Amino acid sequence: MKSQIENIQEYLEHISTDELKKFASEASISDVIMSWDILEDDQKLTLFLQLDTERKVYLINSLPNNEQEKLLKQLSEEHARLLFSEMEPDDIVDVIQSVSPEVRRSVWNSLDFESRRETEFLLRFDEDDAAGLMTPRYVAIRENITVYQAIQFIRRTITDVETVYYIYVVDQLKRLAGIVTLRQLLTAQDESRISDIMESKVVSVREETDQEEVARVMEDYDLIALPVLDHYSRLLGIITVDDVIDVIREEQTEDVYKMGAMSGETNRYMDTRIWGLVRKRIPWLIILLLAGTLTTNVLHNYEPLFLSAAFLTLFVPVITQTGGNSGTQSSTLMIRGLATGEIRFRDFFSILMRELLVGLIMGILLAFVILLRSHFLPPGIGVYQAVAVGTSLAFVVLFSTLVGALAPLVIHRLGFDPTVMAGPLMATVIDVIGLTIYFEISRIILTL
Amino acid sequence: MKSQIENIQEYLEHISTDELKKFASEASISDVIMSWDILEDDQKLTLFLQLDTERKVYLINSLPNNEQEKLLKQLSEEHARLLFSEMEPDDIVDVIQSVSPEVRRSVWNSLDFESRRETEFLLRFDEDDAAGLMTPRYVAIRENITVYQAIQFIRRTITDVETVYYIYVVDQLKRLAGIVTLRQLLTAQDESRISDIMESKVVSVREETDQEEVARVMEDYDLIALPVLDHYSRLLGIITVDDVIDVIREEQTEDVYKMGAMSGETNRYMDTRIWGLVRKRIPWLIILLLAGTLTTNVLHNYEPLFLSAAFLTLFVPVITQTGGNSGTQSSTLMIRGLATGEIRFRDFFSILMRELLVGLIMGILLAFVILLRSHFLPPGIGVYQAVAVGTSLAFVVLFSTLVGALAPLVIHRLGFDPTVMAGPLMATVIDVIGLTIYFEISRIILTL
Repeated sequence: MKSQIENIQEYLEHISTDELKKFASEASISDVIMSWDILEDDQKLTLFLQLDTERKVYLINSLPNNEQEKLLKQLSEEHARLLFSEMEPDDIVDVIQSVSPEVRRSVWNSLDFESRRETEFLLRFDEDDAAGLMTPRYVAIRENITVYQAIQFIRRTITDVETVYYIYVVDQLKRLAGIVTLRQLLTAQDESRISDIMESKVVSVREETDQEEVARVMEDYDLIALPVLDHYSRLLGIITVDDVIDVIREEQTEDVYKMGAMSGETNRYMDTRIWGLVRKRIPWLIILLLAGTLTTNVLHNYEPLFLSAAFLTLFVPVITQTGGNSGTQSSTLMIRGLATGEIRFRDFFSILMRELLVGLIMGILLAFVILLRSHFLPPGIGVYQAVAVGTSLAFVVLFSTLVGALAPLVIHRLGFDPTVMAGPLMATVIDVIGLTIYFEISRIILTL
Repeated sequence: MKSQIENIQEYLEHISTDELKKFASEASISDVIMSWDILEDDQKLTLFLQLDTERKVYLINSLPNNEQEKLLKQLSEEHARLLFSEMEPDDIVDVIQSVSPEVRRSVWNSLDFESRRETEFLLRFDEDDAAGLMTPRYVAIRENITVYQAIQFIRRTITDVETVYYIYVVDQLKRLAGIVTLRQLLTAQDESRISDIMESKVVSVREETDQEEVARVMEDYDLIALPVLDHYSRLLGIITVDDVIDVIREEQTEDVYKMGAMSGETNRYMDTRIWGLVRKRIPWLIILLLAGTLTTNVLHNYEPLFLSAAFLTLFVPVITQTGGNSGTQSSTLMIRGLATGEIRFRDFFSILMRELLVGLIMGILLAFVILLRSHFLPPGIGVYQAVAVGTSLAFVVLFSTLVGALAPLVIHRLGFDPTVMAGPLMATVIDVIGLTIYFEISRIILTL
């Protein structure tokens, strides 16, 4: 993928308009998407206009909001009309929700009556709910018709729907009664009734179901489309698998950001203004800084101790870092386990035992490493002193491993998101107590 | 979802065998999956045997390796045969690759001739390649037949294939010549030729294409199935979207682990032995510890300085932590941007400028926070001293932000995976230089 991107880059660096048009006529959609960031705004328009409608639709859907905005502003009335006539209503809604008011108005004007109806309908729902992902373009039939009638009906309506692989069976009140796959229809006898071949146990979600749960359900059942019902279990629309993959990706980015101690919203880095980047990052830094300054007080208390044993100060960063790292490791394992549902609070004690052992073993190993390192290499402290440092490090690692593992479990149990406890916050919490352990153990060993 | 899990837990705590059978007959597949970890081994078998084949197949596919192993061991010959006759060959291969030799043998014996042929074929390929994800059960037709003939052919063969939504057109050498969607077939005239309606530009991958790239391609094109070709562009099989979703999830866990400074393999925590957990975690801890001990030497060099200005030692952990945090933030943004392809090396200088500004602003803000905190709250150091600490912190933050942003870009450019640079390693690298900056700036300000 990477090398491919670079080839296209070089190719496009100083491309003439004619070459660009040639490129547009041949390029695959992913080539177009890749090349987008490289082109000048006027080139982008030229390229876009050269694309067939199918690739136009793909491109618009995959562009970041501000790029959609720019492009739509430049489009002529009829180009826009042509474009939106081909777009799925759920994608149109995404565009409408992301662009500026004036562009939104022109988008609206270029919609035909049918799309306006559908769009209005979809705009009633929350973006992050199941209903926010769905399209109203599904095939619904009544259960009392025959397979032959159904197939005829589908062959007529097939062009206006997003997926025909599931056909939904509804009663006269539009309540979901069952489901038939196109496969079942095609293999069934022409004269048999839908009610005889339909599956009446249908996996579905409510309009307000959270989008991350929607993703989970579709994964568990390996579905390519999922019906969305209102509170009277009437069929509102269907969610197709391609929209769910986007949800999973977004989820992923949010978690990574939280682990990096940043707010979770996932706007593109390059499109975020300097102030936006600062606002995204500074709050956590200040919180962590203030929490971290507690270490100042800990060190202050032990000033007399490390005035009599100055070498202790040399290892303060090593102690805090290693404590933070071992804590981060176990919290990462827990948070991931909780996210995938593999680990639950009821495992508390078995986890306690496992991490106790793991922490003990790792602590002892690391103790030896630091002992040898600090005795035989500069600053080359005495054996006794090295033993003191090593032993206290072992205890710090044991403590950090336990806190790192158990804190997320408790936080999750209390109903909060444990992700923020991975990494930085964990490390800061551990520093304060870790240093205390370090100094106390050393004092005992050095009998000061 | 969570609450639902807990309901099922309570319900299953002390369930009688009859109740369990009742549960099995009614429960949805995701209920079954959720309940699995709660049940005793004998209960698991009872539950499993009560399920209809469809849910049996789902369950087996979603169970972790050791659970598959346990279950398959207990299954009788005919139960196993029934189960595998319903499983897709690519899923059978996954099972075979994960279970122990003896179970593998019994699985093999319970396969019918056809499945053995398919399984042998698939076992030739690497798990992590495109070919490792594919199923050989696709519909392929010749281009010179009519739509009517095609539909008849599909209605006959439809039951043995995994997806019929794309029909692949191949020439006499089995080379992929084009593609027709079932939708196109059903809307076309019975007498028209496949060659007239087929799309000859087909998105496909090679057998050795990496599975993460496969996922990306299917996302870009919103495909529900993707053909896999050998080097003579002959059709080997197809990859269906459900298998790709699993790939994306796995990818996700690997990245999170790497950010937590652990090896990426993604076995379940609860199934990993103590030694496995240690092996997974200790290597990074030792590397980071040894790298971190460089701070000892830095501090050693400055011993004379902080003997004359003891308060400097009090802020060592704060300096290293804050430096680490700001570095982690910018590296996280870069790594994510590189992963999604949004950021590329050619953006180097614009990123340099942005992070320079962001680092400067954040540095100044944080400087004021620490200045006020350390002057007005215990240990309450003097204004001069507080200014020294604040100013040097500002420089450390600026430096860390830049390194955090640029290091991943360079590493990625050199062709390595930048993920490991997020979090711990970044923090350790920053500590060493950060402390030097801290002491030098303070020395200048305090004119020592």
